[in-house]
Amino acid sequence: MSLIEIDGGVCAPIGFKAGGVHCGIRKNKTKKDFALIISEVKASAAGVYTSNLVKGAPVVVTKQHLFDGYAQAIVCNSGNANTCNADGIQIAEGMCSLVERVSGIRSEDVIVASTGVIGQKLDIGPMADCIDKLYESLGNNSKDANEAIMTTDTVPKSVAVQFILGDKVCRIGAIAKGIGMVCPNMATNLIFLTSDVAISPEMLQSALSEDVGSSFNMISVDGDQSTNDTCCILSNGLAENEKIVSADGNYKVFKRALHYCTVKLSKMIAKDGEGATKLIECNVKGAKSVKMAKTVAKTIIKSSLVKAAMFGADANWGRVLCAIGYSGEKIDPFKIDVDFKSKKGILPVCRQGYGVDFSEDFAKVVLSEDEIKINVNLNLGASSAVAWGCDLTYDYVKINGDYRT
Amino acid sequence: MSLIEIDGGVCAPIGFKAGGVHCGIRKNKTKKDFALIISEVKASAAGVYTSNLVKGAPVVVTKQHLFDGYAQAIVCNSGNANTCNADGIQIAEGMCSLVERVSGIRSEDVIVASTGVIGQKLDIGPMADCIDKLYESLGNNSKDANEAIMTTDTVPKSVAVQFILGDKVCRIGAIAKGIGMVCPNMATNLIFLTSDVAISPEMLQSALSEDVGSSFNMISVDGDQSTNDTCCILSNGLAENEKIVSADGNYKVFKRALHYCTVKLSKMIAKDGEGATKLIECNVKGAKSVKMAKTVAKTIIKSSLVKAAMFGADANWGRVLCAIGYSGEKIDPFKIDVDFKSKKGILPVCRQGYGVDFSEDFAKVVLSEDEIKINVNLNLGASSAVAWGCDLTYDYVKINGDYRT
Repeated sequence: MSLIEIDGGVCAPIGFKAGGVHCGIRKNKTKKDFALIISEVKASAAGVYTSNLVKGAPVVVTKQHLFDGYAQAIVCNSGNANTCNADGIQIAEGMCSLVERVSGIRSEDVIVASTGVIGQKLDIGPMADCIDKLYESLGNNSKDANEAIMTTDTVPKSVAVQFILGDKVCRIGAIAKGIGMVCPNMATNLIFLTSDVAISPEMLQSALSEDVGSSFNMISVDGDQSTNDTCCILSNGLAENEKIVSADGNYKVFKRALHYCTVKLSKMIAKDGEGATKLIECNVKGAKSVKMAKTVAKTIIKSSLVKAAMFGADANWGRVLCAIGYSGEKIDPFKIDVDFKSKKGILPVCRQGYGVDFSEDFAKVVLSEDEIKINVNLNLGASSAVAWGCDLTYDYVKINGDYRT
Repeated sequence: MSLIEIDGGVCAPIGFKAGGVHCGIRKNKTKKDFALIISEVKASAAGVYTSNLVKGAPVVVTKQHLFDGYAQAIVCNSGNANTCNADGIQIAEGMCSLVERVSGIRSEDVIVASTGVIGQKLDIGPMADCIDKLYESLGNNSKDANEAIMTTDTVPKSVAVQFILGDKVCRIGAIAKGIGMVCPNMATNLIFLTSDVAISPEMLQSALSEDVGSSFNMISVDGDQSTNDTCCILSNGLAENEKIVSADGNYKVFKRALHYCTVKLSKMIAKDGEGATKLIECNVKGAKSVKMAKTVAKTIIKSSLVKAAMFGADANWGRVLCAIGYSGEKIDPFKIDVDFKSKKGILPVCRQGYGVDFSEDFAKVVLSEDEIKINVNLNLGASSAVAWGCDLTYDYVKINGDYRT
């Protein structure tokens, strides 16, 4: 597949502008906290959301606005999740109305999202005061929008790709914020994707819904699932490819390009988990079913003891076995093989449920890298899955012990 | 109920002796690592075990030995879990044979347990060399046995009570080790209970199995479930009460005394969670079912974000709501009330799903105590549950980042 990475983030696809400014929700004036992404024309739109029963008001409003399958803008603030507030829906609707006021885009065609502290009132005042400035700032500024949706993220997370559909060059771009409360059942934190592909809302929703099962739903930073997780895509058709309306070859090409972006962002989100120093990738194969492989991979990635061992570069593979054992899946402990792997080499640590001798010195070398693979073979079947997570560090505790102050 | 706490731990009931010595499994010579508890006469015996499919060899052997409902001794080492070792069963059986050799108690009547690192070979040599010394040390030495089963525990955990059955004074004593990997489905870590009550093996098993559902199964330190969790009780009948053979009034008195001990140990285990500085007790009421109450309470107690907020004395109640929302139970977010409580007072933070104003200064005062209650009313029904956990601290990471070295 002739897929290449390109620059530009959400502005890489034709017809998208983005911007981000500081409006004052956050006290730190150097921190942008208000983002806007706009398509020149109305776009097919799709979303996946948190399955947490305690939902942020913006999630409720966005679901309503995407009900008809179309949207044209995305507005988002950081610093406050607008969740568990009595007037939350009103504020979220108000944010969409601000976009309508400056752009003429109907508020029903605006996707709205918020991220930050839960349970503190969100004042629309600072956003009302800055919406003109934000609108005027729109341009090829994906990075500004990206920065404006960050909370405790240490780096912006962005990707864009170019690929061919029929005889047309097409693009997908994306920005994401990750970090704490990363353990979704539906979608992780905030991910905004843009595309210039012509595709029906139904096929776009189908592509996104299928994709998250093997991308954003396979990341875990701390096992907590956010109230505001939202992953949305706008696809405006300006690439002028033959419109995708069924699961044909072009749909598959589109899905592969989408998956490239979502996996890349998944790894970036996991690696930038709160306080994390390492990306942990867990590959499980030999499972009886994909469900078994996914459950085992996620259980390992979520284990606090495995995560702490990875932080300490300690080849404590017993904790991997232990996590597999309590995953709830009917594995056979006496068939399990485990290897640790990094750029420095492969370290076999367990065969058929028992330990194998290894050099502790070489183990330290392998595990001191910043990207570690935990490769598990259950030796029960032909299914596999990959999950991504990070190590558990002092800084995770520091960041979360005092988040609101 | 005329129940009083007494001294003596597992040696409080009539006819029990205990001891603990350093045999050399642990490198630190000041650390006891080999424990023995013996009853003068054969006792009714019962156990509950980890439901982890990766089980320590001692769990397998103990289950076999308790199959007939009787036992007379408990032998345990710390420093090595004897799990995921090819010769594990043989070693565990060997430990029982050592007890038979010195005491004459049939090895089939010995309960065996191990705790420590998973996946490292356990050499029986040091234990064989020290079994005579251990046997000779037996006496009113519950504390020695308690110390010998500790791993990263910072304090020994012990309790004993005295109560009346009919016209007889009866006793239950116990020692426990807790700390890491504390999140059981069946039983938590190692808990050894002794009693001089006369009770049939069937009723003893029934009492223990029912009890753990509202005691040891309601603690969580880190969400990991050990391969070696074992909770066993020996009840030797030397109190000469009328033997309990059915769920009569005396059985209820026995169960209440047992529950007093198990709840006390549960709190001690939670409070001494790895690196913990606070005991967190979560009381959930107003649930539609006990299952709902238990699931919600445990989900809150397990949330890394809630735990880190408690460490920071941060009244971030949104994280409590968030955890309730992803518990999997069908709660109604708009009915939930939440209070934080400690010796310093009660802090209402949420009513019907929305935040209520509170003083941040008073919140710091309430949450800076070392025992915090999170009281949740789901306002859906009449069922309730209690779960215990601890805060998440820098030291948890430190202890677990480098456990094996």
